[in-house]
Amino acid sequence: MAKRQYAVIGLGRFGVSVARRLQEAGQEVLGMDVNEERVDEAVSYVTHAVVADTTEEKALISVGIRNFDCVIVAIGNDMQSSILTVLLLKELGVKKVIAKALGKNHGQVLDKVGADWIIYPERDMGERVANQLLSPNMLNYIELSKEYNIEEIIVPSWMAEKSLRDLDIRAKYNVSVIAIVRDGNIIISPSPDQNIHNGDLLVVIGNREDLADFSNLE
Amino acid sequence: MAKRQYAVIGLGRFGVSVARRLQEAGQEVLGMDVNEERVDEAVSYVTHAVVADTTEEKALISVGIRNFDCVIVAIGNDMQSSILTVLLLKELGVKKVIAKALGKNHGQVLDKVGADWIIYPERDMGERVANQLLSPNMLNYIELSKEYNIEEIIVPSWMAEKSLRDLDIRAKYNVSVIAIVRDGNIIISPSPDQNIHNGDLLVVIGNREDLADFSNLE
Amino acid sequence: MAKRQYAVIGLGRFGVSVARRLQEAGQEVLGMDVNEERVDEAVSYVTHAVVADTTEEKALISVGIRNFDCVIVAIGNDMQSSILTVLLLKELGVKKVIAKALGKNHGQVLDKVGADWIIYPERDMGERVANQLLSPNMLNYIELSKEYNIEEIIVPSWMAEKSLRDLDIRAKYNVSVIAIVRDGNIIISPSPDQNIHNGDLLVVIGNREDLADFSNLE
Amino acid sequence: MAKRQYAVIGLGRFGVSVARRLQEAGQEVLGMDVNEERVDEAVSYVTHAVVADTTEEKALISVGIRNFDCVIVAIGNDMQSSILTVLLLKELGVKKVIAKALGKNHGQVLDKVGADWIIYPERDMGERVANQLLSPNMLNYIELSKEYNIEEIIVPSWMAEKSLRDLDIRAKYNVSVIAIVRDGNIIISPSPDQNIHNGDLLVVIGNREDLADFSNLE
Amino acid sequence: MAKRQYAVIGLGRFGVSVARRLQEAGQEVLGMDVNEERVDEAVSYVTHAVVADTTEEKALISVGIRNFDCVIVAIGNDMQSSILTVLLLKELGVKKVIAKALGKNHGQVLDKVGADWIIYPERDMGERVANQLLSPNMLNYIELSKEYNIEEIIVPSWMAEKSLRDLDIRAKYNVSVIAIVRDGNIIISPSPDQNIHNGDLLVVIGNREDLADFSNLE
Amino acid sequence: MAKRQYAVIGLGRFGVSVARRLQEAGQEVLGMDVNEERVDEAVSYVTHAVVADTTEEKALISVGIRNFDCVIVAIGNDMQSSILTVLLLKELGVKKVIAKALGKNHGQVLDKVGADWIIYPERDMGERVANQLLSPNMLNYIELSKEYNIEEIIVPSWMAEKSLRDLDIRAKYNVSVIAIVRDGNIIISPSPDQNIHNGDLLVVIGNREDLADFSNLE
Amino acid sequence: MAKRQYAVIGLGRFGVSVARRLQEAGQEVLGMDVNEERVDEAVSYVTHAVVADTTEEKALISVGIRNFDCVIVAIGNDMQSSILTVLLLKELGVKKVIAKALGKNHGQVLDKVGADWIIYPERDMGERVANQLLSPNMLNYIELSKEYNIEEIIVPSWMAEKSLRDLDIRAKYNVSVIAIVRDGNIIISPSPDQNIHNGDLLVVIGNREDLADFSNLE
Amino acid sequence: MAKRQYAVIGLGRFGVSVARRLQEAGQEVLGMDVNEERVDEAVSYVTHAVVADTTEEKALISVGIRNFDCVIVAIGNDMQSSILTVLLLKELGVKKVIAKALGKNHGQVLDKVGADWIIYPERDMGERVANQLLSPNMLNYIELSKEYNIEEIIVPSWMAEKSLRDLDIRAKYNVSVIAIVRDGNIIISPSPDQNIHNGDLLVVIGNREDLADFSNLE
Repeated sequence: MAKRQYAVIGLGRFGVSVARRLQEAGQEVLGMDVNEERVDEAVSYVTHAVVADTTEEKALISVGIRNFDCVIVAIGNDMQSSILTVLLLKELGVKKVIAKALGKNHGQVLDKVGADWIIYPERDMGERVANQLLSPNMLNYIELSKEYNIEEIIVPSWMAEKSLRDLDIRAKYNVSVIAIVRDGNIIISPSPDQNIHNGDLLVVIGNREDLADFSNLE
Repeated sequence: MAKRQYAVIGLGRFGVSVARRLQEAGQEVLGMDVNEERVDEAVSYVTHAVVADTTEEKALISVGIRNFDCVIVAIGNDMQSSILTVLLLKELGVKKVIAKALGKNHGQVLDKVGADWIIYPERDMGERVANQLLSPNMLNYIELSKEYNIEEIIVPSWMAEKSLRDLDIRAKYNVSVIAIVRDGNIIISPSPDQNIHNGDLLVVIGNREDLADFSNLE
Repeated sequence: MAKRQYAVIGLGRFGVSVARRLQEAGQEVLGMDVNEERVDEAVSYVTHAVVADTTEEKALISVGIRNFDCVIVAIGNDMQSSILTVLLLKELGVKKVIAKALGKNHGQVLDKVGADWIIYPERDMGERVANQLLSPNMLNYIELSKEYNIEEIIVPSWMAEKSLRDLDIRAKYNVSVIAIVRDGNIIISPSPDQNIHNGDLLVVIGNREDLADFSNLE
Repeated sequence: MAKRQYAVIGLGRFGVSVARRLQEAGQEVLGMDVNEERVDEAVSYVTHAVVADTTEEKALISVGIRNFDCVIVAIGNDMQSSILTVLLLKELGVKKVIAKALGKNHGQVLDKVGADWIIYPERDMGERVANQLLSPNMLNYIELSKEYNIEEIIVPSWMAEKSLRDLDIRAKYNVSVIAIVRDGNIIISPSPDQNIHNGDLLVVIGNREDLADFSNLE
Repeated sequence: MAKRQYAVIGLGRFGVSVARRLQEAGQEVLGMDVNEERVDEAVSYVTHAVVADTTEEKALISVGIRNFDCVIVAIGNDMQSSILTVLLLKELGVKKVIAKALGKNHGQVLDKVGADWIIYPERDMGERVANQLLSPNMLNYIELSKEYNIEEIIVPSWMAEKSLRDLDIRAKYNVSVIAIVRDGNIIISPSPDQNIHNGDLLVVIGNREDLADFSNLE
Repeated sequence: MAKRQYAVIGLGRFGVSVARRLQEAGQEVLGMDVNEERVDEAVSYVTHAVVADTTEEKALISVGIRNFDCVIVAIGNDMQSSILTVLLLKELGVKKVIAKALGKNHGQVLDKVGADWIIYPERDMGERVANQLLSPNMLNYIELSKEYNIEEIIVPSWMAEKSLRDLDIRAKYNVSVIAIVRDGNIIISPSPDQNIHNGDLLVVIGNREDLADFSNLE
Repeated sequence: MAKRQYAVIGLGRFGVSVARRLQEAGQEVLGMDVNEERVDEAVSYVTHAVVADTTEEKALISVGIRNFDCVIVAIGNDMQSSILTVLLLKELGVKKVIAKALGKNHGQVLDKVGADWIIYPERDMGERVANQLLSPNMLNYIELSKEYNIEEIIVPSWMAEKSLRDLDIRAKYNVSVIAIVRDGNIIISPSPDQNIHNGDLLVVIGNREDLADFSNLE
Repeated sequence: MAKRQYAVIGLGRFGVSVARRLQEAGQEVLGMDVNEERVDEAVSYVTHAVVADTTEEKALISVGIRNFDCVIVAIGNDMQSSILTVLLLKELGVKKVIAKALGKNHGQVLDKVGADWIIYPERDMGERVANQLLSPNMLNYIELSKEYNIEEIIVPSWMAEKSLRDLDIRAKYNVSVIAIVRDGNIIISPSPDQNIHNGDLLVVIGNREDLADFSNLE
């Protein structure tokens, strides 16, 4: 994978998590924060870390911010700093600026001042949690379209030790099994004779409502 | 879907998002917060909303908290209130208590006092963002095991107007195409003759590194 | 003069001054502020006054903000409120939004979120004061271009009781006298025979440097 | 222009603007503020800058304040410091003390303790903005007397490509055109045959109400 | 004694003490303070008491402040309020305004805005205490001029049971005894034969240094 | 005068005034305060000055507080510190401790913990001011007993140029003139033929009510 | 037991504990606190409860404080209120005043203003905890004199099933067993033939060092 | 006594008291606090003292906390720090963790995160004080069971100079005298002929109610 240069501004929980993951993937990461203590701690998980007030143009210029491939503005609760920082980054010509928004209005202002991608961690995570509560057997999902999902679900106990052919899932529930996860291994496009075991996870694709009915069967 | 009773304690961004999604899915949702203004606003997206200090046992008893199927403790920044609330909920016998943690230590205490599921929105969302930055063509993903992912990726332009057979993806990249998303429709288990169009999304399954190589091809 | 509808948001010193002047000129003026006391005092100088948090869309809608010809955002020191208010006003389709900026960066954000005219009272007034200090005999001025000004200057005592012809200002100083202000009356395009009196004010037009030399003559 | 010595006390937006303009005009400017950071930044736009609490006599004496031609007290929001500073400056014999007032009462106290000129930036700028709103085609103005103004106005489109003689402005609107600004050049006392172009600015003199009628014509 | 009308503004310890003493002497006293609790308590020791912000002209007008013979501004620690109140009182035409000052600069501003008499309780009381420490036998004193005092002193024990003639105080110490205070009675201009008793107080007049020597004799 | 050692604890306005007066009278004065800035300023008016928290025994011991003849506790507004300091001073055996009290209760506690003399500057100064207002011609006074005063009064204009014999003050007003102050000189026990001049001050002795009647004559 | 009247001032943890225990023992208890919420909660464990600022004499008089047999001043952290309250209680003639002290100095002032018994909960509880840590088998103790203790200790396992005679405790360890606690029953002055069981507690009396040696035997 | 290693975290009044007592008993004690000043003072009463934030794992590891026999968490009012510290100590494998709780809920959380012994100083001390008020002649007590106490009581005057036989305490009051404390000496299991003196203390054992009746006899 090509090595790119990232700057993460704001080293709170969200920023730390982004920075740490990028660094682990072998990328170059610069961490910036106004808080000295946070910067001191950052040396263990980023390539470089500097104390800087990123609402001041010269602070951004002095780290050569233009040379970064992507800047993530993960400033916590100070909406004003977040807005001014994004503004300055775009003024200075940074190509890709990703910014965390607190709420809808904040997100709109970030959009107006030029942020390329806006993240709402609290809102999005809230939705994920609610979705999982609604389908307790569902472990994970991708929304493919307004109607279709891929979901990873826990096999209900009544399915155990039956073959896919016997279960006839597609016909009965209008849902396709595209993979089985068993003990960390993956069986892609399982054959109809494949037996399902207790503890298996099914990867299924289908209409959202059909999937909900299917995954809530007990 | 059976109608269940949820209580959401703490109506900040995360709590609002959980509550709103559950309510939209037709569930009964009680919203609770110490802040009167937030409770006033909540009436538009929950079934009931009450002002309450949930670190006081009698506040929880007076809403009949034992009768709820699941309580989500979405208290924002007050770690102490979050801990005491979870403690009281479990003392009172609530079966399922989900709690948002600020960080690792907070999460551990929540675990000790009995929380059934602990959420770290900032950390988890940070990781998702980093993952997406690392594979810019990847829109969404499910981690199936330590090695395997399902990913939804944007079709690189050089693939357009070729058939799956011609591309020979499985052989060349060790990756299986399990669905194509085209204009909101889904083609499940596409045939080898299927042509790929510009703007299509591919749902692929495979080893994480193979997927990274494949999705970063340009 | 046609009667138009103005809303002034933020009733600090700047907002009060705008509102009062518009009201005196017979316009309809709505005053808005989050501070109840300020709104109470506003009834003496505006048509209507309401307590409202203009960072909330519904507050703006409930006063029918779309129907106003012009909204002046005179919010004092809360940069964030000022930005969100301008954003919402433009989202709601207000045609003309004028906003007071604290500084350069604030002004840039206001521009990005759509403000039509941005005012910097402290900066502009500072410049006016400095200009007047530099030309102590100059009472007022208009900058016509990068080079030319019209200025109103106090007649230096040595000019008193001489005619314009004798003084030969145009030839000597490269400056044209376009009016004389005497006891509140105006003599437009004075004839060369016109005598100048002590206490007269001259309205002169010319190159800025020539004017500075002329007005500092003693 | 003679070089004079100015001190600007209080380096907020107003003070900075005064100081910068004076410095640009080649004057000697001393900047003073209690805030160290502001003083650090001031070195780029003033001759000297010192950290000082100007409510203490010795601070003023140690910079030799008596030798300054003019002291501008631009202290922002601390009315008490502003009053005590002006008091001390006059006690120490400074000849010209200019002070920024927050409001009417503040201004009166400044007057009593000896300020020579009192500035109300918010109030005055508010009035200028309101005046311009009332005459949207007017760009700038000087109040010559209680009744007469000079105004710089945008040429309404219906006037374009007509001569001043044809328009007969003086007779019809009781207003005199004393200059035309075209592409940054000035035509002083234009001849009646002069044609007006789209984009020209007219400098006109007249009774305030007549000017308002004229500049609002469309 | 004629009955006059006093207003005391600021009901801290100093204001309460002034108001209480005036009221006891049969005068009409209006107490004013911004603090409601203080006003509630004031009803026991003043004729009337009102809650009012005396930095607002209308508050002063509404109590008819012009009709008071004397206004005492006893505002505690808020220098700004004290200055604005005095300013407004004099603007409104109050004849006699007495104001308590915190220190020298505050006192000077009060003087400039028109206060008729300025009191420095802490400073003056400090001096009285120091004077008494310096002459421990001295109970009280009046400074008649830069050199002369009247002092009330405790009779030193060696004087007891001697006559004034025998003591020959005037000749020996250059000090005149003008009265003897004995058990609450006063002997004015005592005769030379008058014997002095233990426990008597002497009222003496003389040069300050002579008095100090005399009163410190033991 | 013997040189004694004083310590003044608390260098606010009252403490400064005590310390300065004692120092001027040639005494040794140690100033103490928790506030470093105040201690820095104190070096100009005391013999020594130290930063110390006098609620800590060791701070008092380290300055050898036992050796001081008298300690003045002039702590401003922190009742608790004032009480603890007095307690410690008496525990440590300081002979004379003088303490400033904020109010009655504070004074009582100071008395209980052993203060030898308790001062109420605000209350006492308030009474002095009220007394002077009640007798506007009275400049100063000593209360000799519950009934008798000595007062220094301004000569009313109708007395000017009359002799004491003609005025017959003792018979008419029951008041004795014991001295006349004229241009800074003192005439003790003036003869009946002595004429009174405009601008003279009379020192009179008598019953308080008689004095009030006399001094208010106009 | 005679019924007496107690007042508990300050309803924090200490005050609540005192009040609750007295009430349970059938006494009349009045609870007082400045905090309304605490008083509301107190009604469940005291006879009466009132909101009152006990630093104000009238508040104490209005509840008839003189009629109480004993007043416990359990004010938490506000040293000043605690001191003033004790002062007023003794001034008002309350016979027995018990007060909680924060530390040594606070305790001394409470003593000076008349408190009859002074409690140091943190200090005393700290000592009890340390003592128990030093003798882990000791559950409880009474200090009878500087040298002697009674202690309740857990029987070490090696003693189990032996008779007191066999163990010969008095001779070997110089310690007397005065009672055995077994399953909640007490055997007073056990006979030498008495066998000791596992789980018994011994009540022993002796010299403190001998007891420490004995109780730490394993 | 074996020398053990203790750490005391939180050096407020409770912590200081524990630490001081342990140190006096010859144990090794490490004091820890976030507050530098407290740590500076601690050197006089502990073996070592360090400034540390014990909610951070590395701070605990760096002092080798695993090697301590017992850690006392005496953190004052910061419930969250107290909880996190106990959590970390148990995670790190400290065998014995003793923690001070503010109230019932705090205590429960401490229990859940693994505290081995939980202390409630305010509550327990409150109960002891109440018990002593209920039996004013009782000086100290041990609760042996739900019904039985040992108590140390002051001899009532009517018992003085009588023998135990004559008093017949066991028969009349159902209470056994197990020791007499006289002038610091102890008479264990006194003989029936033993006379009781005024000033003796009796150590008695019995049913709680019988003891209350006996000790309140007068």
